Amino acid sequence: PPNMPEHTAALRLRLSGLCFLLQILNILLFAVFVRYSPESSPGLCPPQLNCSQRNQEPVFQQRFQDVHIQVLLSFGLLVAFLSRYGPGSAAISILIIAFTIQWALLIQGFFYFFLNGKIYVGAPSMVSADFCTAAVLISAGAVLGRVNPVQMLLLALLEVTLCTLNEYILLSLMGVSDSGRSLTVHTFGAYFGLVVSRVLYQPCRDKRKREERQDTGHQTDVFAVVGTIYLWIFWPSFTSATTAHDNAENWAVLNSYLSLVASTIATFILSPVLYEESTPRMVQIQDATLAGMAVMGMAGEMLVTPFGALIAGFLVGLISPLGFRFFTPVLYSRLKIQDTWGVHNIHGLPGILGALLGTLLTLLATADTYGDRLELVFPLVAQGSRTVTDQAFIQLGALPLTLLFAALGGWVTGAVLKIKVLRCSPDGQYTENTVLWEVKLGNCW
Amino acid sequence: PPNMPEHTAALRLRLSGLCFLLQILNILLFAVFVRYSPESSPGLCPPQLNCSQRNQEPVFQQRFQDVHIQVLLSFGLLVAFLSRYGPGSAAISILIIAFTIQWALLIQGFFYFFLNGKIYVGAPSMVSADFCTAAVLISAGAVLGRVNPVQMLLLALLEVTLCTLNEYILLSLMGVSDSGRSLTVHTFGAYFGLVVSRVLYQPCRDKRKREERQDTGHQTDVFAVVGTIYLWIFWPSFTSATTAHDNAENWAVLNSYLSLVASTIATFILSPVLYEESTPRMVQIQDATLAGMAVMGMAGEMLVTPFGALIAGFLVGLISPLGFRFFTPVLYSRLKIQDTWGVHNIHGLPGILGALLGTLLTLLATADTYGDRLELVFPLVAQGSRTVTDQAFIQLGALPLTLLFAALGGWVTGAVLKIKVLRCSPDGQYTENTVLWEVKLGNCW
Amino acid sequence: PPNMPEHTAALRLRLSGLCFLLQILNILLFAVFVRYSPESSPGLCPPQLNCSQRNQEPVFQQRFQDVHIQVLLSFGLLVAFLSRYGPGSAAISILIIAFTIQWALLIQGFFYFFLNGKIYVGAPSMVSADFCTAAVLISAGAVLGRVNPVQMLLLALLEVTLCTLNEYILLSLMGVSDSGRSLTVHTFGAYFGLVVSRVLYQPCRDKRKREERQDTGHQTDVFAVVGTIYLWIFWPSFTSATTAHDNAENWAVLNSYLSLVASTIATFILSPVLYEESTPRMVQIQDATLAGMAVMGMAGEMLVTPFGALIAGFLVGLISPLGFRFFTPVLYSRLKIQDTWGVHNIHGLPGILGALLGTLLTLLATADTYGDRLELVFPLVAQGSRTVTDQAFIQLGALPLTLLFAALGGWVTGAVLKIKVLRCSPDGQYTENTVLWEVKLGNCW
Repeated sequence: PPNMPEHTAALRLRLSGLCFLLQILNILLFAVFVRYSPESSPGLCPPQLNCSQRNQEPVFQQRFQDVHIQVLLSFGLLVAFLSRYGPGSAAISILIIAFTIQWALLIQGFFYFFLNGKIYVGAPSMVSADFCTAAVLISAGAVLGRVNPVQMLLLALLEVTLCTLNEYILLSLMGVSDSGRSLTVHTFGAYFGLVVSRVLYQPCRDKRKREERQDTGHQTDVFAVVGTIYLWIFWPSFTSATTAHDNAENWAVLNSYLSLVASTIATFILSPVLYEESTPRMVQIQDATLAGMAVMGMAGEMLVTPFGALIAGFLVGLISPLGFRFFTPVLYSRLKIQDTWGVHNIHGLPGILGALLGTLLTLLATADTYGDRLELVFPLVAQGSRTVTDQAFIQLGALPLTLLFAALGGWVTGAVLKIKVLRCSPDGQYTENTVLWEVKLGNCW
Repeated sequence: PPNMPEHTAALRLRLSGLCFLLQILNILLFAVFVRYSPESSPGLCPPQLNCSQRNQEPVFQQRFQDVHIQVLLSFGLLVAFLSRYGPGSAAISILIIAFTIQWALLIQGFFYFFLNGKIYVGAPSMVSADFCTAAVLISAGAVLGRVNPVQMLLLALLEVTLCTLNEYILLSLMGVSDSGRSLTVHTFGAYFGLVVSRVLYQPCRDKRKREERQDTGHQTDVFAVVGTIYLWIFWPSFTSATTAHDNAENWAVLNSYLSLVASTIATFILSPVLYEESTPRMVQIQDATLAGMAVMGMAGEMLVTPFGALIAGFLVGLISPLGFRFFTPVLYSRLKIQDTWGVHNIHGLPGILGALLGTLLTLLATADTYGDRLELVFPLVAQGSRTVTDQAFIQLGALPLTLLFAALGGWVTGAVLKIKVLRCSPDGQYTENTVLWEVKLGNCW
Repeated sequence: PPNMPEHTAALRLRLSGLCFLLQILNILLFAVFVRYSPESSPGLCPPQLNCSQRNQEPVFQQRFQDVHIQVLLSFGLLVAFLSRYGPGSAAISILIIAFTIQWALLIQGFFYFFLNGKIYVGAPSMVSADFCTAAVLISAGAVLGRVNPVQMLLLALLEVTLCTLNEYILLSLMGVSDSGRSLTVHTFGAYFGLVVSRVLYQPCRDKRKREERQDTGHQTDVFAVVGTIYLWIFWPSFTSATTAHDNAENWAVLNSYLSLVASTIATFILSPVLYEESTPRMVQIQDATLAGMAVMGMAGEMLVTPFGALIAGFLVGLISPLGFRFFTPVLYSRLKIQDTWGVHNIHGLPGILGALLGTLLTLLATADTYGDRLELVFPLVAQGSRTVTDQAFIQLGALPLTLLFAALGGWVTGAVLKIKVLRCSPDGQYTENTVLWEVKLGNCW
């Protein structure tokens, strides 16, 4: 269409302007509220962040870095997956991260690190900001291809708030133990994104174009290989990022590692059966790794036992590819939910299974088997203010609650993103714009 | 040929089925034998793993991670090298790793961490499992292109057992000090793989095809650059992964680092002379880095002195390219040994040189120069139950022993892999299958 | 031209021979001077390296590794940027690093770790050698495309010496506090390289060829994505590598992180306005990240306050792209300075701004706000031997001094590199040689 240039220029400036406003807003809010966390202030520190660590800074520094690696990693994976839409989308991911981390520092600060009108930031607040960013990236994976950068920024703006609220209710108020964030990151992020995707549903066009794009596999594989290596190395630290006690960490690391190994093997078992290939593509292995990690989110620090971790990873490694093969198409045809990244199979289902597994293990927890570890994993139980059964019920109750939050939040967010001024008319006005154009191709399944 | 599809389908299902069986087997064995290592059990800990570390968990955690990075790295390098055979081979590498780590946890557990019928796993067992995986990956590098995934899995199955046996005899029974695994990983892995490659020798076909593949250099270089960066960063931690004492580590890190720097320069000196290029290709630099590391495996924690490390690295950096240029072709033409990855030049020779250097340094070791470090590097000598000369003889004797083990083991393994049911008829039945087909091209030199 | 082959062969052998001589020289000097640093020798340790760390080896080990990652990273970025000149240039970068680290260990050793005729090397000396290498790589970025490997090696040879001298005068004699090396690495490296580039100026030829190369963007982007991820993860540790005190590190990490986030956003604001793209290219984001880090070099460990870090990063994130758009062309047309890598915008300006910011913060420093941190950041002020104002003046005076050093050093170096025997006649005699040929294309802007 002839009016294309104007449209594009308009969008360009709109994005540029929005970034400017948001950054100024962040700077002002930081100027008013944010201060460095004083050296010794356990009072400021939320229970789930184990401020005991802050006395052993180096260790924490290390964990802090791993979590970073994780976030940039999950973004790296986002890139990995998106590389088929062209590297332009990597830029958008970075934009999301750069904004979300600042915003999460503020919002999470209000919930966790707020004292006499000031937010005190330090390594712990960076860590929880990173967790929050991970959730936003997961949701972004579901809607990618149907939203422009402006909408993406607003999605981050809203999701951070809701995700933090959910996390606060679960971890601080209900005292749920979810150190690896099966619920608050994986499940919430996935279903939030799926509901947004549902609200933004638009019937399918240019199916043909999408086919063409499929053969940019080489670069995708490069990314996928790098991404998988990173995952194997650092995710175990991720799931154990907020478990201070070294032995406990030891458990979390071992469990996640065994789980991911088993889920990887599972992929090699199923993909030859499901597809006409003798070995899975790297992206599938990468997904299996992610799924194997997500299932260990809540249960990681509990007494899964080595073979339990193997079994859990093995099952989720079988479920995830089946989901891709059979469930994702159904989601699209029946429920009109387009799941660009397949986050439902990679984060959604594994997250739910992880929560159920965590509940089961909570039910089986005894003082003998956990020893002094009980104090760490189930503080309230250790203090006797709660029986193991109560704790298990609460862990279980946290699941539907999270789903509810995610659904409502996603619905509201989707409604906001549909506002006319934000939507870009679907007549491919961005065809000049690599990113948006290529991403538009993700439109149809 | 018309019967191609059936064949391929058959292989696909065979691989899928074998993975399934092996995983179930692993799960069962884990269920019966494997438990979490109790917090305080120095008795369970083999001398060469310095359980003193387990009291300083964070440090160990850190090392543990580095070793991981290493393994996934060496696999990353495998990918790097193989990227010319297409990314499909990356998937196979991951399959090997995913299986080998579980299997090594079991086998090594039986040797090192077995107590009252249970294997107690923890960070130390993960580390030795990772070492073992590295050996398998090195061997895989030698036979790549002539074995299918099913054979590869069986190779891993057998090599893990033999490698662990060899390591147990050397480190635990003979009290050889080989912290960086010049012998038990580099030398064993290389010659094991070479012998297997010899047994599987099949006369050369489609030489032409291979030439064509050579110009996929770009992606290879991307991988090689990333791989080299990783090596420079993490290998020093690898060679010092099992040396607890910080000062000793300091030595190991410095030595490996100086050695790799010198061997890199050496590559820049030789490659213009050997080849018509003014600067070496990234893959050559990567090989030089690996060789420079392998030579520091045993000697790393000893008193090499900075210039000694420079000299050792410099020499091995000169030998390795010469090996590629002159020795590998001879290996193939005279001895009918096809060395796909050139592991003989990258791991075999440097490993042997490292062992000889280690022996020499053992002979020169004195209580004055080593100080309290002697207790760490040569515990038996420090306890006076052995003279330095005895220790040196034992270090030297470990070399032929390792070569013998590798040769026998490789011969047996090769014989097993030749069983008709495993072999794939050579009439290029996998031409549809990217991985195997492309790997088949590595067939001829 | 017909005599091309001989020329190329000549250059090849000249490079090969030079490498050989330099390596032998290094080995001899190491043999004569370099020894392992004894375990307990605080006397050997320069103040700015905080040897207190060496008692907490693990932490230091960790930092040491991060700095490594940084160096190889900055080299990774060099590669990233240069990937458009073909991977061959990666090899040259590695050559520079491999030589520079050895040389820097010697030169820096003479200044900092020299005692009774011996240089005692350990982790601290490796760290300062790495810092020095970073400066050399920055300078290399400015002259890339107009020098051959032989000249590059001589540039490293000279710059290491001058850079160390400058660093010694600033940090040790004047007691400037520049933990993140805004001045001694970023500013010095950038202007040193720019002056060398000016001296080596040669009028422009084959502009056409350069255009053609521009469309190798894909691989560049892969590198840029990886490079950016690394930067985000490890640079905060870089800027805080030499600040021992954990709290201080905490500040440095937070400041750098906030600064880079803001500068990234700034890029998204400007690039749509400056260029016809709705989102910046990955390389631009990478540059913004670097600039955001460089500005926090000196101020990082001071009381920037979170919003101060955001503002600083935001401003430098706006200035750097403007520099690329408007200043770099002026540099070339008016001052005849060809800035291949744009180091002036990425390291030069941000470094200067960082120094000014550091001076301002020094002026504002008070004992109350810094607490026991004052002892760490401004030891002389804490000891009362200096007022804050004096310190601020000295910090400010260090800037022109560094610029003077860089200018003089660059001028001398450039003059040396112009010696006929080193110069390669400009008639494109290396056209067969990928590296040099491709790099030659960077010749004109």
